[in-house]
Amino acid sequence: MTLSTKIKSLHQLAEEYLSFANSFNWNLQPVGLYEPISYIMNQQGKTLRPQALLMFVNFTGKSLATGLKVAYAIELFHNFTLVHDDLMDRSETRRGKPTIHIKYGDAAAVLTGDAMMIYSLKMLTEYLRGPCSDQLIADIYKMALELCEGQQLDMSFESEQLVTMQEYLSMIRKKTSALLATSFKIGANLAGLDQHDRDMAYQLGEKLGLAFQIQDDWLDFYGNPEITGKQKGGDVLRCKKSILIIKALEKMNAMEQKEIISLYQQQMEAKVEIFENIFAQHQIREIVLNMFLSYKEECIQIIQSFHSLQETHRKQLLEYVNVVLYRNH
Amino acid sequence: MTLSTKIKSLHQLAEEYLSFANSFNWNLQPVGLYEPISYIMNQQGKTLRPQALLMFVNFTGKSLATGLKVAYAIELFHNFTLVHDDLMDRSETRRGKPTIHIKYGDAAAVLTGDAMMIYSLKMLTEYLRGPCSDQLIADIYKMALELCEGQQLDMSFESEQLVTMQEYLSMIRKKTSALLATSFKIGANLAGLDQHDRDMAYQLGEKLGLAFQIQDDWLDFYGNPEITGKQKGGDVLRCKKSILIIKALEKMNAMEQKEIISLYQQQMEAKVEIFENIFAQHQIREIVLNMFLSYKEECIQIIQSFHSLQETHRKQLLEYVNVVLYRNH
Repeated sequence: MTLSTKIKSLHQLAEEYLSFANSFNWNLQPVGLYEPISYIMNQQGKTLRPQALLMFVNFTGKSLATGLKVAYAIELFHNFTLVHDDLMDRSETRRGKPTIHIKYGDAAAVLTGDAMMIYSLKMLTEYLRGPCSDQLIADIYKMALELCEGQQLDMSFESEQLVTMQEYLSMIRKKTSALLATSFKIGANLAGLDQHDRDMAYQLGEKLGLAFQIQDDWLDFYGNPEITGKQKGGDVLRCKKSILIIKALEKMNAMEQKEIISLYQQQMEAKVEIFENIFAQHQIREIVLNMFLSYKEECIQIIQSFHSLQETHRKQLLEYVNVVLYRNH
Repeated sequence: MTLSTKIKSLHQLAEEYLSFANSFNWNLQPVGLYEPISYIMNQQGKTLRPQALLMFVNFTGKSLATGLKVAYAIELFHNFTLVHDDLMDRSETRRGKPTIHIKYGDAAAVLTGDAMMIYSLKMLTEYLRGPCSDQLIADIYKMALELCEGQQLDMSFESEQLVTMQEYLSMIRKKTSALLATSFKIGANLAGLDQHDRDMAYQLGEKLGLAFQIQDDWLDFYGNPEITGKQKGGDVLRCKKSILIIKALEKMNAMEQKEIISLYQQQMEAKVEIFENIFAQHQIREIVLNMFLSYKEECIQIIQSFHSLQETHRKQLLEYVNVVLYRNH
């Protein structure tokens, strides 16, 4: 396969995707089933997965037509998980708007989510038909089950006293990385890259997802609330098992663990300050930041290890990694 | 293709299916996601869809191995719809046991249902791989969306004043017939029947599903409660839009309709007797019974119109129709 060095910018790819997505018509019957799909699919997120997929297709210089359709199907799948996750977590807003179960009711959220998932898998099966499709479809089903497993692990952590680092990383790998990694891999397939580079694409998405989620947990406590737009220490206040508390517990003996777990589960004034001290005692800020940086560094290494990419392509992959991971600390 | 006249009985097919299903292992991680699947899949229903599918495969005299796996995947899909429907309808028991959301909570019902659906589609994609698989998989996705649409129509009927007969039939075709028809068609495919006979198989399942649901509505009011095990007129008492009230309203002018709709929506003593009189005035008992008999007659006609079946096979199909539709009126 030949690659083109005349490539579109990430911004151009995002624009093309948004223009395609906005033209997609959900004006189907029965309205009660399909209108909520239109409602959520018209609230565009950051289009990170479409950009990931289209970037690879665009490396070939070929038409983006199939890539755009596949990217839309992936976003539909992603949004199905948001609809059901928001219902399970009883979240009331998403992207500043009422969630589906708030706007249309619980039953609509269940059923619309189901229809979105089926529609997405139907589209992927149609659009990816071809010589490698069996493996690719198998990968997609694996990813779909991993997303369910990740959500289940995330929910069950709430009632577990002690979550290990390994359990936590397995959860975010399934819940956050799997879909991004699969988007990268599908893009590499559509671009016709060889098996080695397809695997690299998957690994890049996987490590990037881990880095992203670890950074997200870190920023929740150490980020600037004026920039993140979130309350400082929201995870601590909601007793959520984030990487910070998991890492802190890992560094304690059984007696200390028992005491800190009990403290973490309480609601109290000054909880954020108390845990700021506990985390400081154990250098959690630096340790978790280093974990993040180490996953980011792995991403950079993977970008160098693709067989078939040229400098222009590696540069854009690096730019993408920086876009996903750039946040003001 | 050659058919065998030495065929297993429906009872034998049901037994083979149950033995296969009971050996299926859901001992997977995380337990919170997969244990509820095991719970519901171990409560066997009437195995009507497995029998439908296996009957056709068995006509060829060939091994049932693939058919059993496909039948299990179809039952898994059917049970996913039960888990989500029970959640949406807030039903508390199913087959005499607590429903999933009652036993494991609402979130588990959402997520377990999702995993069941994905697992089922994954299995069907794997097991049906072959020359005709593209069309078959497309049929399965169509059916899956129809099930969602049927459930949505059924829910929206609750808040609609006047449901037409056409709307009602469209709803039960999607909600009840689509899965049975698809099971028949997959069976005919696995048996290697020609396109005409595959279409006949689909139509047989479709008409049989309609007949079954119409009979179900009829029995709810006119069946013997000692035999049905249900309260007489349960649908009327719950203000449910069954075929009886829809047919009755069809025979009235606008003013009468308005009055009867208002009456139907009320809770009152003697509601069942009041509607017994209204239905009698309009011969609803006979008219709906005739609709049922006419769909049953269509099933018998379709059985005669298969190209490739021999008398033994037609006889078993007829026996199957009678098993599905036999109830004491």
